[in-house]
Amino acid sequence: MDKRIGHAGLASRVMTAAQAAELIDPGMTIGMSGFTGAGYPKAVPKALADRMMATQGHGDPFRVRVLTGASTAPELDGALARADGIDMRLPYQSDPELRARINRGEMDYLDIHLSHVAQYAWFGFFGKLDLAVIEATAILPDGSLLPSSSVGNNKTWLDLADKVIIEVNHWQPLEMDGMHDIYYGTALPPHRRPIPLIKPDDRIGEPYLRCDPDKVIAVVETHAPDRNSAFAPIDETSKRIAGHLIEFFRHEIAKGRLSPQLLPLQSGVGNIANAVLAGLQEGGFSGLTAYTEVIQDCMLDLLANGVVSVASATSFSLSPVGIERFLADIEFFRKRIILRTQEISNHPELVRRLGCIAMNGMVEADIYGNVNSTHVAGTSIINGIGGSGDFARNGFLSCFLTPSTAKNGAISCLVPMVSHVDHTEHDVSVLVTEQGLADLRGLSPRQRAKVVIEHCAHPTYRPLLQDYFERALHSSRGKHTPHLLAEALAWHERFLETGDMRPK
Amino acid sequence: MDKRIGHAGLASRVMTAAQAAELIDPGMTIGMSGFTGAGYPKAVPKALADRMMATQGHGDPFRVRVLTGASTAPELDGALARADGIDMRLPYQSDPELRARINRGEMDYLDIHLSHVAQYAWFGFFGKLDLAVIEATAILPDGSLLPSSSVGNNKTWLDLADKVIIEVNHWQPLEMDGMHDIYYGTALPPHRRPIPLIKPDDRIGEPYLRCDPDKVIAVVETHAPDRNSAFAPIDETSKRIAGHLIEFFRHEIAKGRLSPQLLPLQSGVGNIANAVLAGLQEGGFSGLTAYTEVIQDCMLDLLANGVVSVASATSFSLSPVGIERFLADIEFFRKRIILRTQEISNHPELVRRLGCIAMNGMVEADIYGNVNSTHVAGTSIINGIGGSGDFARNGFLSCFLTPSTAKNGAISCLVPMVSHVDHTEHDVSVLVTEQGLADLRGLSPRQRAKVVIEHCAHPTYRPLLQDYFERALHSSRGKHTPHLLAEALAWHERFLETGDMRPK
Repeated sequence: MDKRIGHAGLASRVMTAAQAAELIDPGMTIGMSGFTGAGYPKAVPKALADRMMATQGHGDPFRVRVLTGASTAPELDGALARADGIDMRLPYQSDPELRARINRGEMDYLDIHLSHVAQYAWFGFFGKLDLAVIEATAILPDGSLLPSSSVGNNKTWLDLADKVIIEVNHWQPLEMDGMHDIYYGTALPPHRRPIPLIKPDDRIGEPYLRCDPDKVIAVVETHAPDRNSAFAPIDETSKRIAGHLIEFFRHEIAKGRLSPQLLPLQSGVGNIANAVLAGLQEGGFSGLTAYTEVIQDCMLDLLANGVVSVASATSFSLSPVGIERFLADIEFFRKRIILRTQEISNHPELVRRLGCIAMNGMVEADIYGNVNSTHVAGTSIINGIGGSGDFARNGFLSCFLTPSTAKNGAISCLVPMVSHVDHTEHDVSVLVTEQGLADLRGLSPRQRAKVVIEHCAHPTYRPLLQDYFERALHSSRGKHTPHLLAEALAWHERFLETGDMRPK
Repeated sequence: MDKRIGHAGLASRVMTAAQAAELIDPGMTIGMSGFTGAGYPKAVPKALADRMMATQGHGDPFRVRVLTGASTAPELDGALARADGIDMRLPYQSDPELRARINRGEMDYLDIHLSHVAQYAWFGFFGKLDLAVIEATAILPDGSLLPSSSVGNNKTWLDLADKVIIEVNHWQPLEMDGMHDIYYGTALPPHRRPIPLIKPDDRIGEPYLRCDPDKVIAVVETHAPDRNSAFAPIDETSKRIAGHLIEFFRHEIAKGRLSPQLLPLQSGVGNIANAVLAGLQEGGFSGLTAYTEVIQDCMLDLLANGVVSVASATSFSLSPVGIERFLADIEFFRKRIILRTQEISNHPELVRRLGCIAMNGMVEADIYGNVNSTHVAGTSIINGIGGSGDFARNGFLSCFLTPSTAKNGAISCLVPMVSHVDHTEHDVSVLVTEQGLADLRGLSPRQRAKVVIEHCAHPTYRPLLQDYFERALHSSRGKHTPHLLAEALAWHERFLETGDMRPK
């Protein structure tokens, strides 16, 4: 690729971020790129936030509705939140400033299954999309885009938006050319057809994002890195969680319910997920596949040594060291990593067909296997459900992982009743903490309670849960799912009052 | 078809139900036919129950594990429950005796998405299947079975079970020949392929159930009708609920988000569902399709007059009058009704591809759009989740319908927090009561609360919900999903104490 902006007409639309931000109107609904801190626009949102603050200084409110792939970074969510510039945000976020505003009730946030976002936009459920602001690695001579480090909902935003602003980021490596697979076979019902993907490494689309040059109102050049942070070393608790899960996999292989190659792995982001992947490597697994959302550093290790033969995702989330490593061996990785649109990475049709092994973190689970992935004490959102529901509902195994306690033991992550439900008892098959693993498959609610308390609860809280369960068994009106309603949320109430779930 | 038992070897295995029941051992896991009171075995379960009671008279416990398609009838669930003969039951039930035992904690019940049952059996999550007891309309010369009035999980039970008992029911009309479509293209991951169904009337399988004659240990002949009851006339409340929903459909057509033919309809069983279908007829709709679970009487009307052009399901649930009507015009209906396995009727891949309009009843919803489909006051199960989750998660629209109150106003079906969650806020797009319709699409939790309270709540409870919401807005720690944890379940507590959710 000779130059970053290969289309003459679009080269003539290069301007500064501030100039581009002038083209954005209050009240617009804007689809932006970005998924898990990768591939988000680095300059225009910040310039827009500056403009908002200037306008607001004159007493005029200036807010927009912002749709993305998932979480972004301080330059997007943080900047716009600080400017009080977001009226509505979806479908996932992890920014401290944005989160604070949401939980103060100052803006609206829609927490949506990642597999639902693109289709809801196409269905018209979010209204008209005025603008797309999309980061690209380069613009090709025909106007199509070499995507950057995430694909997310970019295809949908580019197709649906009236106008488009492109950020061409010179920091994004041109060597990614050929790694993306943009599927253009989607349609609205009743015109949908089977999605022709049967293996994680099937390529069913095109390497570039189509983009109508006539819609492009601005091109902005940037040179800024993604929100890449170095990973913390894997802690002992995460190692123990990973150990229990891998022991369970071995048990399932021995029983003939899984092959030694397992099934395509989906794993959330973070320390526990890293520990599981590292544990698979140490455990001698090989020839595995991943059909997941995000490629983290540890996946490069697994690909390099053949533990994983191919990884499909919608986004990178590499540390600076990881990026160096990736670029140093780009020819190797290009054959083994595929980045797709998130409607395909998370599609229920594909997750079910492939039989993914879903491994996601959680906030808390209750003794009957309901899982809260999003809320503290039922009211404050942390990040969002993300893709956990897409994989938990449709995968071969639906595993949720957490340390058994949080805040130095003040919070038990196993509770009598979760304060918010993101994954129901019908969608959860395995719970894992550093204490052990509860295999809930084929169990009734009462049977589940016994294994959750025995295997997953921290010793401090185990007798408290056991006491609750026994008293509920005795006094509950119905004994299918025994509960004492007056006490069911008392642990959360106590935490709100005293900062500690443990009774005085 | 000359005779009901066309296979010579199987004709030689005809015996009485009592003789067949002697072949069943304590502790067996048994897959039985039956879905929504249709196509369940009529004689063997009853004979087994008699045997159990006789055995128990001698002090020997005799219990089995029973897997079906969905609910059955007194001759199966009722008889075995009265004999205390069920150790574990899945995935759905509606029998009063069985329900009472479950809620007394005397047996285990697994409430499972109907689309998950067959695959979990194939995955080995329910252990080995010892026996299948399957009702058929006839046995063909090659040993395959003409299915009866429901298909359910029969294919899976016949394929997986070590042994098979067939009940040939002479009451089931031979004229159903050609209406069934049994898909044999399923596989275990990683060998799954796209399911080649793109329209509700596509036939992708075979008209008969394959059955290995060598596995058949008994054939029992019966002459008993399904659990068909006449339908109650449509009441005023149901009519009003249906009216709101149909008005919403018209609005969506006007906005261009739905075509006049809508999208394939899925509707639950019962009075409200009937009212919706009748309302579509009165409203002048035509050329609709149904991709649903059960064919009720009213669907025959809609097919007869062209309101619906084709209906796909997994079961019939016709009244005696409905059956007469069906048989009188069998050639017409055979071209327009298809009965499939329930893994196909409820498959997430297909529900999403077709873009079904999901319409299901519920027990209660909360102001934030979480839905309880199964539990009274969080602890006693009524029936089960059935297929509601399969359609709600994957359909184009996910609608839940209920009268705004129950028990003469003593229960509000809109509450501050549901006492059990079967469908999360992420999976619910429309709530309807006789009071009105709340369109939750694109709304944050606080925005949802406003429309739910304003449009759906009964006037008696509306100010109470409004009061809760305002105080939660003020005092809740987090204001993304405002709640007062100490009060969130207080309405249910009050109902348990006084029999009435209304404060004194």
